[in-house]
Formats: sequence, C-alpha cells, structure tokens
Amino acid sequence: MVYQKKVQIETRGHGDVHDLTRQVARAVAESEVDAGICHVFNVGSTGAIGCIEFEPGLQRDVHEMLDQLIPAAREYAHEQTWHDGNAHSHLQATMLSQSVTVPIRHNELVLGTWQQIFHLECDVRPHRRTIIVTVTGE
Amino acid sequence: MVYQKKVQIETRGHGDVHDLTRQVARAVAESEVDAGICHVFNVGSTGAIGCIEFEPGLQRDVHEMLDQLIPAAREYAHEQTWHDGNAHSHLQATMLSQSVTVPIRHNELVLGTWQQIFHLECDVRPHRRTIIVTVTGE
Amino acid sequence: MVYQKKVQIETRGHGDVHDLTRQVARAVAESEVDAGICHVFNVGSTGAIGCIEFEPGLQRDVHEMLDQLIPAAREYAHEQTWHDGNAHSHLQATMLSQSVTVPIRHNELVLGTWQQIFHLECDVRPHRRTIIVTVTGE
Repeated sequence: MVYQKKVQIETRGHGDVHDLTRQVARAVAESEVDAGICHVFNVGSTGAIGCIEFEPGLQRDVHEMLDQLIPAAREYAHEQTWHDGNAHSHLQATMLSQSVTVPIRHNELVLGTWQQIFHLECDVRPHRRTIIVTVTGE
Repeated sequence: MVYQKKVQIETRGHGDVHDLTRQVARAVAESEVDAGICHVFNVGSTGAIGCIEFEPGLQRDVHEMLDQLIPAAREYAHEQTWHDGNAHSHLQATMLSQSVTVPIRHNELVLGTWQQIFHLECDVRPHRRTIIVTVTGE
Repeated sequence: MVYQKKVQIETRGHGDVHDLTRQVARAVAESEVDAGICHVFNVGSTGAIGCIEFEPGLQRDVHEMLDQLIPAAREYAHEQTWHDGNAHSHLQATMLSQSVTVPIRHNELVLGTWQQIFHLECDVRPHRRTIIVTVTGE
C-alpha cells in the first residue's frame, strides 16, 4: 500500500525553520497504513529535512551550527560559475540531508516526545517549497 | 509485506557506541522478506544511527569528530532555556541522522564486509534506547 | 512491488564524484512502479551517496568541504591499528551518508531541476563500487 501527498510551505529565506510534524502525521492518518515507513522529501537541493526537538533555541542553533561549519563567507567553486551566492546553501542541505524516514505503527508516526520533523530553508532567498510525503506499508 | 520489531539497548552516556547489525539482521531473517529495504530508527532526538566499519578505532573517532565539529563547550540558544547541557547532543544526532536504511537481498542485509549498523549515544546521560526496525518488501 | 538492481561504477579515488541519476531513473522505469520510493545504497563504508546540483563547481566544493571538516591530516584512532590512511574516508562517508531515498510518482523520480543523485568516493584509492537500487511501491 502506498499513499503519497504533496505538502507546500512558504519559507522566508536562509535559516527559516518549519515544523512539518502535523502535516506529515495527517498524511499518515489519511494513508490508513497501520505499519510501515513514512518518507519526507524536499524537492530541490537547497532545502533540508531532519528530526529535532522543535523548540525556539534549537531552531536557531541548527542553522547557526550549519553556518559555522559551512559558512557563506568562503570561496566556493560554485560561485565562480553561478554567482548566485548560495554555494553554502547547497552544501548545508546536502550535509544535513534533504529527506527523512520515520516508522509508522498503529497508523501513527513513531517519534519521541521531543522529536519532531523539521524543514530548514538553506537558500538565501524565500521559496515556495514542495515536500513529498510517501507512506508505504500495510 | 511489512515486519516491525522493537530493539532496546542500554547506553552509558555521551559517546557510547553499539553495533546493532546482529539484532537488525535477526529482524530481517524473522521478516521472511526476500527483497526490500530495512529501516532502523532511534526514537528520541539525541541518539544517532548510521553505518561504519565497527572497529575500536572508528568507534572512538566518530564521536570525537562530532565533538570537534559540534562541541559541548559553545553557547547554544537551547541552553538558555533548558539548561540541560545537551544542545550539542541534539545537533550531533541531527547532523549524523537518527536513522539508516539498508537494502535486503535473499533475506539478508546487503552490507560490505566492513560496514556495520551502529548506534551512537549523543546525550550526556545514559538512556534505555528504543530502536524501531521496519522491514518492507516481498 | 519490489524491484532491485545492482549498479557498478569505477572510481578514481578520493574526491571522485559520479552522477547516478540516469542509472537510477532507468531502474525506476524498469520497475514499473508508479508511486513509491527509491533507495540508493553504497555497499562499503567509504563511499557516500546524496543529492546535489550536479555541476562542476559543487562537485569540487562537496569534497573540499568534507576535507575541511574531516581532514586527512589529523590523528585518528583508526590509523593506530590499521595504518591504511583512510580514517577520514570512513568518517566523511558516515557523516554525509551512504544512501539516499527519493520519491517516485508517475513512474519517475521526483527531483528538482537542479537536484541530482551523486556518488562521492571518499576512500584514498580507486574502487569498483557496487550500488544497490531498491524500488518499492505499487
């Protein structure tokens, strides 16, 4: 059994974080899949998806950590050709990952109490992001 | 076909590493799935799961690398609210990932000879960790 | 429905990057799966797989970023036992991830225009790499 749903969010640019858990949980409920897995994927290579405790402190920490490890102010080969100022956005999203997979049990996401599914905008400009949620199981 | 199993491990706190390969392989055998994928997920946002050559050197290197990239001794917004001293634990587990997916062929995990599935405790205190293994395929 | 295919590539050693998108797309077409997910896995713990805009600049940036974060020239516990000079290769592949999962819709990979599936050789020597593509869905 497969259920697929498109979720759209509007981001305000670099460092903007969204909690996707409710929208993903709704897709799982609609799927009527009792046991299986749920895959959440950002279409496009400058948006990241992962799991974190979704509280205001960590929402800031996660993109500050990425900016420290992969800063905007460094020389990147990507910039020499494209001059769009977002090489670090690509690298950050690739390092964090552009998707996450979560188990489903009793038609619900299996997540810890302080474990949510988030989207992080890594690009330097706002985007309308398309996220594909795919539920497989039985 | 879906088979799901809960695996529990006791961790001793930050940097403790466990080889999950045997327990995951047993779940695959029990599933009787011939071809498909096996998803291994840590419930909770301060434990990480990945693949590595499970030998004593790399067991140490992997958490030392994370401590160097995302050190405990830095100012994190998470700490200003929660004061639980584990902001770096959250960020490390998010960066490494809290799950891994491995292919199944002939009812066995497809892994290289020196490629094992590991759990890394990123939190500062011991935990009883629940890991959900979900096998899907036919 | 499950379809599995082995893809092989020859790498020239550390930092060599391959675009896997066409070969993975072909496996999806062959699978005749209309909706589902496609899992792409590197057998072996020193090769990485992810999604990125596959253009010459970022092909260089992605491995230079990893070499900066996890340099060869550092003391690793792995080296003290194995002396094979590739501790950083293991750690880089573990951090980036050895697999990626992409959604399938209308029997095609759902990817952004500038979002491709790549393989990065992290090891210090050339390899014949085996990549397992597993398509599940209906």
